[in-house]
Amino acid sequence: MRAVVLNAGTLTLRDRPVPAVPGECLVRVTAAGICGTDLELLRGYAGFSGVPGHEFVGVVERVDAADSAWMGRRVAGEITVGCGRCDGCRRAGRGHCDVRTVLGIRGRDGAFAEYLSLPAANLHAVPDSIDDRTAVFVEPAAAACRILEQVEVNRETRAAVVGAGRLGLLVAQVLRHAGAHVTVVVRSARGLATANALQLETVPLDKSTSLARQVDLAVDTTGNPAGFAVTTSLVRPRGILVVKSTFHGETPIAFSPLVVDEITIVGSRCGPFRRAIDLLEAGAVDVKPLIAATYPLAQYAQAFDHAREGLKVMLTT
Amino acid sequence: MRAVVLNAGTLTLRDRPVPAVPGECLVRVTAAGICGTDLELLRGYAGFSGVPGHEFVGVVERVDAADSAWMGRRVAGEITVGCGRCDGCRRAGRGHCDVRTVLGIRGRDGAFAEYLSLPAANLHAVPDSIDDRTAVFVEPAAAACRILEQVEVNRETRAAVVGAGRLGLLVAQVLRHAGAHVTVVVRSARGLATANALQLETVPLDKSTSLARQVDLAVDTTGNPAGFAVTTSLVRPRGILVVKSTFHGETPIAFSPLVVDEITIVGSRCGPFRRAIDLLEAGAVDVKPLIAATYPLAQYAQAFDHAREGLKVMLTT
Repeated sequence: MRAVVLNAGTLTLRDRPVPAVPGECLVRVTAAGICGTDLELLRGYAGFSGVPGHEFVGVVERVDAADSAWMGRRVAGEITVGCGRCDGCRRAGRGHCDVRTVLGIRGRDGAFAEYLSLPAANLHAVPDSIDDRTAVFVEPAAAACRILEQVEVNRETRAAVVGAGRLGLLVAQVLRHAGAHVTVVVRSARGLATANALQLETVPLDKSTSLARQVDLAVDTTGNPAGFAVTTSLVRPRGILVVKSTFHGETPIAFSPLVVDEITIVGSRCGPFRRAIDLLEAGAVDVKPLIAATYPLAQYAQAFDHAREGLKVMLTT
Repeated sequence: MRAVVLNAGTLTLRDRPVPAVPGECLVRVTAAGICGTDLELLRGYAGFSGVPGHEFVGVVERVDAADSAWMGRRVAGEITVGCGRCDGCRRAGRGHCDVRTVLGIRGRDGAFAEYLSLPAANLHAVPDSIDDRTAVFVEPAAAACRILEQVEVNRETRAAVVGAGRLGLLVAQVLRHAGAHVTVVVRSARGLATANALQLETVPLDKSTSLARQVDLAVDTTGNPAGFAVTTSLVRPRGILVVKSTFHGETPIAFSPLVVDEITIVGSRCGPFRRAIDLLEAGAVDVKPLIAATYPLAQYAQAFDHAREGLKVMLTT
């Protein structure tokens, strides 16, 4: 099969054997999305080499006998495979397994290929009402929904989302649907236009001081240290700062103001697929304005360049 | 009155007028403790100039008619005075008032003097069973108790306290009393000896990797960036990291591991005086091994030097 392979910071299109992992399902990938984490992987984040890609939709083409119900089904998939026995699994769930593999991120080839392999336990059927390009957003929309599992959000919640990229605008819609009054801090004309298309309230970055120390909940989705600093400035005393960004390297943080203001900082990663599928199916999260382009797998280089502009770029096989 | 005055990083003993603030109580200070924050103030933290000192015990010597019940009483005092009307007060309580003054830290002269002034609402009577040197610990013990208001601690909680100084050993005792299994990470022979005197379980800093990713709750009390880094390394996935340190300047933090592990970081400041008084009275928190020395006010320079060694040094008038 054809696969995009990352090695030492460089992507190449290669021919690879179709995965054949006993006890797992073989999925023919029909579309896969490029995420901020993929861009960070190229810069050395997580030290990954192999096939990247962890947002996908596909069709199950081969299964073990025990999983025959999955045969032929259209699926999205949770990306982490845990052992179920270690300290991490016992104390924090399989997503935090000490020896986990993560699709396209850690020890497991991912979705920028014609096929991928995952255990049946990771799969979620995608309803017919959700088209392929929308289904690619199940994984990142689930990551946005993770916030609702970690933090109470209701009609009293004043929230700010910093970053109007593909993740920020998913998070903003999820928080809005949960009842929060959400403002998106936008940096670019493109971010503003996209947020407007989603009827989200916005404030330009250079005017965001109007929200300084005002919001109950601020979410950093920028993926860069400057964005993190802006996010911290918006949280009220005793408020909550959620960090969705994963970026390579160290961030210098003035910690004392966060201690004095008794801010709670919450790291947030993968989330509930079922909830994400429900929100996408109901139209509560609209992803169409977030899609910049779709490229065939062979045009991976152009696709990655395009993804750097902030919206969702997809690869199709 | 005599007062130790901080100006541009230098302490001097000066003659100052006795405070006379309408609507507040005048307290004759009998003993005051030097805290890590005081040492940071000398390095420029919070930009404070004036009389430092915020841990004290004293006797009320002058009151407004409405507060006559306080006259002659032996008291400790909460250090923050809020306006009760601003956004900060409404949303996060008077401790987070936007225009607050803080005894010996922000816009209000403190306890390293013969007298200080505080509103009656800030005062707490100290029972006769608590001697003066123990009463000086009411404020920092309350700060330790603040953790119990922010985080659930019970018999299932595996906790680590990094730093065996005056604050760390208060925090460790408070967590132990709440039921947690507590290990103190100690760096010096002095820290080890003091922790041993308090029957606290310890691990030396260079062996603390044995706790790596093991504890549900890790508390940084070190007041330095290296200590913060050690503390983060001990927290299990989805665990909680409480930051009690206030230190001047920026700390470089590798944030992605904290996001991937979904760590919650909680800034923690002042706490409940009543609870602290109860714990000190019951002997659940023993402060005697934490006291290094007591100096008269005029020997403030020696006292501050001594406080840099990590245990509690007091000034008496």
